[in-house]
Amino acid sequence: MTAWLLCCRQIKFKMLEVEVKGKIKDLKEFENTLKNIGAKFLKEEIQEDVYFNHPCRDFEKTDEALRIRKINNEVFLTYKGKRIDKETKTREEIEIKCDEKISEILTKLGFNAVATVKKIRREYEFENLHICVDNVEHLGNFVEIESKELKDRNKIFEILNLFGIKKDEIIKKSYLEMIFQNQRK
Amino acid sequence: MTAWLLCCRQIKFKMLEVEVKGKIKDLKEFENTLKNIGAKFLKEEIQEDVYFNHPCRDFEKTDEALRIRKINNEVFLTYKGKRIDKETKTREEIEIKCDEKISEILTKLGFNAVATVKKIRREYEFENLHICVDNVEHLGNFVEIESKELKDRNKIFEILNLFGIKKDEIIKKSYLEMIFQNQRK
Repeated sequence: MTAWLLCCRQIKFKMLEVEVKGKIKDLKEFENTLKNIGAKFLKEEIQEDVYFNHPCRDFEKTDEALRIRKINNEVFLTYKGKRIDKETKTREEIEIKCDEKISEILTKLGFNAVATVKKIRREYEFENLHICVDNVEHLGNFVEIESKELKDRNKIFEILNLFGIKKDEIIKKSYLEMIFQNQRK
Repeated sequence: MTAWLLCCRQIKFKMLEVEVKGKIKDLKEFENTLKNIGAKFLKEEIQEDVYFNHPCRDFEKTDEALRIRKINNEVFLTYKGKRIDKETKTREEIEIKCDEKISEILTKLGFNAVATVKKIRREYEFENLHICVDNVEHLGNFVEIESKELKDRNKIFEILNLFGIKKDEIIKKSYLEMIFQNQRK
């Protein structure tokens, strides 16, 4: 792992969540370590996220996002508000289950798909932490460690130590921002 | 009945539908006649429709509409495109089942609720016609006769004759437009 992101965000039904994200250098070694510390494998999902721009608002400037996530046959619409705290990345997130035809409605209303983030996500559970191992198309392998309890912040840092993660390896960008960054290169 | 609306519209999954709408003068007499001709009562629903404006588009000028309909615990999001044919009122309509938190997402995106249409709808079936008897808050009693078959246009006119409906009694406006009209008075 070379980079990490620590963030607390407000998610579904306005719960607070601590989230840590970083790049994985060696996927096999990483998942072996996960198994060795006793992390329980939960599931593997193929997630396709389509991000939309706003007909009269620059989401990049307002730090908002509108996303349609497809997981198998299920579709979710998610609005992400601007980060309230840059350090912890606390932000409002409203997510609803939806019909895939929401995409057509958004297009009719002037929203346009600007980027797609495809990933294979393998989820693990360790104590009360939720660990997502993501293979992101065009970007590589990443890990996200999440907890619904803000008090788990220190526990997450202990897990980071197990993987030899340094604080200066934190990633500040979302997958969408990383894709935009690559497009500009 | 004093006024009627004939319209063909494109509805869910882009099917074409013939729709006739008119004002009911005497609700009891109207429903008695329905029973006498052999119309089958299907169900009664309380429908609450909230209409939204667009953050940077005047829906009144573009002849579009965005609506959240609540029926008991079910929520539907509907986009209505502009009428393609003013005479037949053919228009595109995309409707999806949704979570009620779609309202919060729309508000975050700059859409604002501009009007609410509440009605008690009693639905009847007669041959292959779908008949809705609506008691609309602040507007009164109306009937809508619908068929998925364009060829039923003449049959609908025969039904109109049974109720003594004249062509010049056709209503050109939607409930939303009628509510806006009342607000301007």
